[in-house]
Amino acid sequence: MSLMKSWVASANTADTPFPLNNLPYGVFSTDDSDPHCGVAIGDMILDVTALEEAGVIKIDEVPVFDLPMWNEFMDMGAEVWTGFRDSLQELLGADADADTQAALKGYLVAQADAEMHMPFAVSEYTDFYAGKNHAVNVGTMFRGAENALPPNWLHIPIGYNGRASSVVVSGTDVRRPWGQLKAPDAQMPSFDPCKRFDLELEMGAIVGQPSDGPITVGEADANIFGYVLLNDWSARDIQAWEYQPLGPFQAKATATTISPWIVPAIALEPFRTTTPEREKELLPYLAEPKPGLFDIDLEVTLAPEGKAETTIARTNYAQMYYSAAQQLAHHTTSGCAMNVGDLLGSGTISGPTKPERGSLLELSWGGKEPLTLDTGETRTFLEDGDTLTLKGAAKGNGYQIGFGDCAGTVLPALTDPFKR
Amino acid sequence: MSLMKSWVASANTADTPFPLNNLPYGVFSTDDSDPHCGVAIGDMILDVTALEEAGVIKIDEVPVFDLPMWNEFMDMGAEVWTGFRDSLQELLGADADADTQAALKGYLVAQADAEMHMPFAVSEYTDFYAGKNHAVNVGTMFRGAENALPPNWLHIPIGYNGRASSVVVSGTDVRRPWGQLKAPDAQMPSFDPCKRFDLELEMGAIVGQPSDGPITVGEADANIFGYVLLNDWSARDIQAWEYQPLGPFQAKATATTISPWIVPAIALEPFRTTTPEREKELLPYLAEPKPGLFDIDLEVTLAPEGKAETTIARTNYAQMYYSAAQQLAHHTTSGCAMNVGDLLGSGTISGPTKPERGSLLELSWGGKEPLTLDTGETRTFLEDGDTLTLKGAAKGNGYQIGFGDCAGTVLPALTDPFKR
Repeated sequence: MSLMKSWVASANTADTPFPLNNLPYGVFSTDDSDPHCGVAIGDMILDVTALEEAGVIKIDEVPVFDLPMWNEFMDMGAEVWTGFRDSLQELLGADADADTQAALKGYLVAQADAEMHMPFAVSEYTDFYAGKNHAVNVGTMFRGAENALPPNWLHIPIGYNGRASSVVVSGTDVRRPWGQLKAPDAQMPSFDPCKRFDLELEMGAIVGQPSDGPITVGEADANIFGYVLLNDWSARDIQAWEYQPLGPFQAKATATTISPWIVPAIALEPFRTTTPEREKELLPYLAEPKPGLFDIDLEVTLAPEGKAETTIARTNYAQMYYSAAQQLAHHTTSGCAMNVGDLLGSGTISGPTKPERGSLLELSWGGKEPLTLDTGETRTFLEDGDTLTLKGAAKGNGYQIGFGDCAGTVLPALTDPFKR
Repeated sequence: MSLMKSWVASANTADTPFPLNNLPYGVFSTDDSDPHCGVAIGDMILDVTALEEAGVIKIDEVPVFDLPMWNEFMDMGAEVWTGFRDSLQELLGADADADTQAALKGYLVAQADAEMHMPFAVSEYTDFYAGKNHAVNVGTMFRGAENALPPNWLHIPIGYNGRASSVVVSGTDVRRPWGQLKAPDAQMPSFDPCKRFDLELEMGAIVGQPSDGPITVGEADANIFGYVLLNDWSARDIQAWEYQPLGPFQAKATATTISPWIVPAIALEPFRTTTPEREKELLPYLAEPKPGLFDIDLEVTLAPEGKAETTIARTNYAQMYYSAAQQLAHHTTSGCAMNVGDLLGSGTISGPTKPERGSLLELSWGGKEPLTLDTGETRTFLEDGDTLTLKGAAKGNGYQIGFGDCAGTVLPALTDPFKR
């Protein structure tokens, strides 16, 4: 697959994240408009809510883009997803006639003039733990190298239910949380601001079709609408004290940042790649009918307040042991109903070497090996004022598919958390 | 507090669960109507959706009861909750004049003619583990008597995020789940129907007002709209294999049954009782400004298919170590936003003696001590066709406050879970 040409000139460069091949879904506002639906093309946004209002595009008898979220569109199913995408590629393609181009130009808004909002309403949020390097690193730190991987890990895409209300769009500041903490040598716990605040580099898969009972990996794959970058902000000291025996709770509830653009699953098709060789044979219900991962380069940058950013990690989504389709299929085994707008976090994505690790917990090895930034400063965990940014791109022949930055700045903890 | 008299005669008995003192919120349908809002009084339901349509009651400029859920009403806040309740007590009270009675009679529907539905849309569902006898019992079975309680248990109301899509109303059949299982002595896991399907006797607290940062226990208490009975169906064999290190996931996702009526928190005020003496001093953020529990008698019955029911457990909500208000306050510590319709499960409620245990796991001590039913049959875990019913009543002076039964029947597992 190579670059598909558009009459929107900025969409035709090798380094735009938003060529005609991508057409990701977002929600934006301008000085003159409330949040509504748009599709990114080059450095512009096509205002699909306005296009629908004007009757230029029509998805259904009733409006689909009248709410500031893509949920209604997702709900309509894969045929509608494909049909809409096909027509946008025709309307925005280099071969579109002059009348079409003239008609659409009035519906293009510069991304520079737009503010981005949550692209969809999160129904429920599940976070997985399906990157093997991450699981081995964390397990080694907590339980020693011999017991690094829990016995179930090579058989189950381990996941836990997260908090949908924690999910925010890129650019939302993240307040350092308070929580119940206890240092290993302390007699009693205390209620204090988190001292070990961390990021987790993940991808998020968005469920676009409901299911009401166990589904196969193939069915699960077809139900995934698109992908976002996802930062699962984590309070390591809260987590260490609270997580036994029922898992992380308040440690993961402060914020979960996603990128502003949902990249359609179909735009990632050319980048499909297999999950790694299985170390233990998987049960048949987890068998993959086709390669389940995607070759997406990922990186994390950290910028101290008012200073330049340093890339602190580079890795690839292909480092996952389980695909999103496998995770979704496992999620349904008990009969668990899945709904439009459910969000599945992949789990932290770490490569095999140190500069490929997707969390500060791993990069600083539990705080023991501080990281030196390009500014000369060091970091074990996040400091107030730090801006964390996740970036991702699937790289094709002369083009790439991007998600927009997934960024957040750490604000200092409140002096008194009960007085706002 | 004693029985408040109503002109609806069936509401004036000592054993009706729905006297004028209660007035719980539900959603019902009849042969002639779609699901809509109603309030229980004696053996009748007051059709508040129809009353609002007819202009007899008015909460707001726009309709509040036009959707089959109480979320919009909850959203309006405690003053509206109290005002509405006061006016219903006036309209339905024994002192109401003849015109009022005549006008309202046409809006009373016999409960016998109504089908009950989910009384509210569950925003997110969190399940706690805050009953000490249950935690000690389970901990003893899994880790031995010395390590029964995890080190954090006496300091934190331990909870985990559950699956909102699993919540169903009483009367919904529950299909025995498939899942990934591994017997301790097996080499490899298998994908099979659950063999150790269980109930958990709990109370559910419903969040009626949003919060967006840490709140105190007092503020949390004021945000709780009402209470339901809750059965947290649990697949023990799935749970045992999956729950380390991130907690229960598919084991708890098959179904969570709630009673059809939301009992207003204010109706339970006369039954307030203190949490037990603290074994470790709690951190100040968990301090209770007033008694946080309620004296509510609870019982569980089990009826094999086509046979009479046996009461298998009797206990009281006052057995909890942490109150719902403490749980909600803890839930917000990290800055976690809470929303209208969030549901908090108390955790399994077990008393100190064997007949007071709220799960078969405890009653049969992990399957080692089968329970004998009144029919002569025995049970370790649930069998297909079993109907489980939770019942609850706060008992006052000549009256009681009930929730309606919280029941579900276990259907056999599907032969092939991927073919429905």
